[in-house]
Amino acid sequence: MSDYDFEQWTCPIPLRDSPHVVLGHGGGGKLSAELVEHLFLPAFNNQALSQLGDSAVVEASGRLALSTDSFVVQPRFFPGGNIGELAVYGTVNDVSMSGAVPKFMAVSFILEEGLPIRELGVIVESMARAAERAGVAIVTGDTKVVDKGHGDGVFITTTGIGVIPEGIEIGPDRIRPGDKAILSGTVGDHGMAIMSVREGLGFEAPILSDTAPLNHLIETLLAERIEVRALRDPTRGGLAATLNELAQSSRVGILIDEKAVPIRRAVDSACEMLGMDPFQVANEGKFVALVASSDAEKAVSVLRGFELGENAVVIGEAVSEHPGMVVAKTAIGSSRVVDTQVGEQLPRIC
Amino acid sequence: MSDYDFEQWTCPIPLRDSPHVVLGHGGGGKLSAELVEHLFLPAFNNQALSQLGDSAVVEASGRLALSTDSFVVQPRFFPGGNIGELAVYGTVNDVSMSGAVPKFMAVSFILEEGLPIRELGVIVESMARAAERAGVAIVTGDTKVVDKGHGDGVFITTTGIGVIPEGIEIGPDRIRPGDKAILSGTVGDHGMAIMSVREGLGFEAPILSDTAPLNHLIETLLAERIEVRALRDPTRGGLAATLNELAQSSRVGILIDEKAVPIRRAVDSACEMLGMDPFQVANEGKFVALVASSDAEKAVSVLRGFELGENAVVIGEAVSEHPGMVVAKTAIGSSRVVDTQVGEQLPRIC
Repeated sequence: MSDYDFEQWTCPIPLRDSPHVVLGHGGGGKLSAELVEHLFLPAFNNQALSQLGDSAVVEASGRLALSTDSFVVQPRFFPGGNIGELAVYGTVNDVSMSGAVPKFMAVSFILEEGLPIRELGVIVESMARAAERAGVAIVTGDTKVVDKGHGDGVFITTTGIGVIPEGIEIGPDRIRPGDKAILSGTVGDHGMAIMSVREGLGFEAPILSDTAPLNHLIETLLAERIEVRALRDPTRGGLAATLNELAQSSRVGILIDEKAVPIRRAVDSACEMLGMDPFQVANEGKFVALVASSDAEKAVSVLRGFELGENAVVIGEAVSEHPGMVVAKTAIGSSRVVDTQVGEQLPRIC
Repeated sequence: MSDYDFEQWTCPIPLRDSPHVVLGHGGGGKLSAELVEHLFLPAFNNQALSQLGDSAVVEASGRLALSTDSFVVQPRFFPGGNIGELAVYGTVNDVSMSGAVPKFMAVSFILEEGLPIRELGVIVESMARAAERAGVAIVTGDTKVVDKGHGDGVFITTTGIGVIPEGIEIGPDRIRPGDKAILSGTVGDHGMAIMSVREGLGFEAPILSDTAPLNHLIETLLAERIEVRALRDPTRGGLAATLNELAQSSRVGILIDEKAVPIRRAVDSACEMLGMDPFQVANEGKFVALVASSDAEKAVSVLRGFELGENAVVIGEAVSEHPGMVVAKTAIGSSRVVDTQVGEQLPRIC
């Protein structure tokens, strides 16, 4: 938690009377109103939110992408990020995976009685900065408080709406044998950042979460008229689950070159130490794109123009063999089936 | 919980292996996929959801109303409803309060490890029925699982999107002195249904929650060209908080006739017994409408055509005196200020 200066965060005056969240902050009365007026409104400041109606009114037209996710990550503050920015970027990215431009976001908090207001303040400020970076407006929200011992500090549910530009058609059903699979960067960073904190692993340099907004990369790929067939971000379940979902929905096989998949040295070491497969570890700022073979080189070059895409690379291709299955060529030249894990490798990773 | 026949609910085959929720059900692997495929998909069945992308793609245009709410009600099953239908109707109603026709919904679950799958099944089926009754499609969702002791069975966050018909302008800034305040039915039912279970109060007949979808009533009011200025549903904080919010946002005063507000006898008795003000108790299937004086009689008559509006009545009016304040004429002819409560009267009421 050393990245966060909780002392620097100044609690707005009316909230100072109770430095911790109490049940009344979720009760719909004056304490709720103070939280909204002095914490959420100044941070998320925009016209739609400031109306404070039962619902926000926004303008949007055409095909909309809608996505929701609850965030329960533990610890709430981790190397490279916190639950607040994770909640914003996670939903921005899910919306982007339809080829949509994320526009609006709804945020709902479930707070546990006793949470320091100061900690909530730091989280909310992170969310505001994340929303600004991604270019989305947080237009409506809700806060509930549960009694001590029936929650875990902060749970955040974000729901995002994006607009899909005309002419854009993205989905696994469009994947054809021969399409190239591009990965936007290294895998395993987020999961191992969380895990190394939980397990108290010490490395020369800490492993940082890769939580980041991917929408600007996707928008640029599409603006450059890259023939993008399908997009997906390998969060829970990691690269392995994502490739399997793509193979199963598209009824093609996916063949990847194991050694082409970029993995940071520290992540690789941590995975080995803990007996984990980096292909199954969660990411929060990466995506897999299936693109037409003829556009693959250009797509990689476009992505490498972004700091968030500097390690983008072709990792494999769609094939007509083994439909629905993902196969990896290993470093020693053999082949292995890349399967989805059964249960949970890392609980509460996001 | 006697209304719910948990024994009758048949657990789909692949879920029978673990009759309780385990961490893996939120892990993004095969257990997560089984929950989606065998529980959520069959219940919420629709085209957008069945794509199972990172986001759902829907069509909508114009002014959209967006609302989100987390539901943490305790107990999860209460006389007259459960957390599932409450989560659907609560958001449907918030969307409707902008004059919008609710269309799409996103649902996110935070489950506690150990929750019986059977109980989740009953909740999900209730949600499906509620969505059908309200005419909304549940198009996307998420499930997270938290370790035992860090949640409380089921928390549900719903986010709704509705389309505001052309020409409809609803908001507290449109309230003018002389407008009539209409209440769609009795107050205090939901809060006292929850409270009577928690406190083990026995009455001749149980107090039932009023959880219900209000969108068809609102749509009909607007179709009948009633000049509706503002709408709000008196949930947390009750009628008192809602009238105060309307008065404060509109800068008019609101004067109500205390004895005009319909309250069921059992609710009134329970409130008296527990020392509660029924004006501050939560409702889940009622709304307050401020309408042009000339349309008030017709509005009441339209509402009374619905079972959900059979007790609709004019309870007061907007006045130019005491702007921002709500005043009630009492039964004995005096006046009192109706204030918003400070904290939480009834924790975890929704």
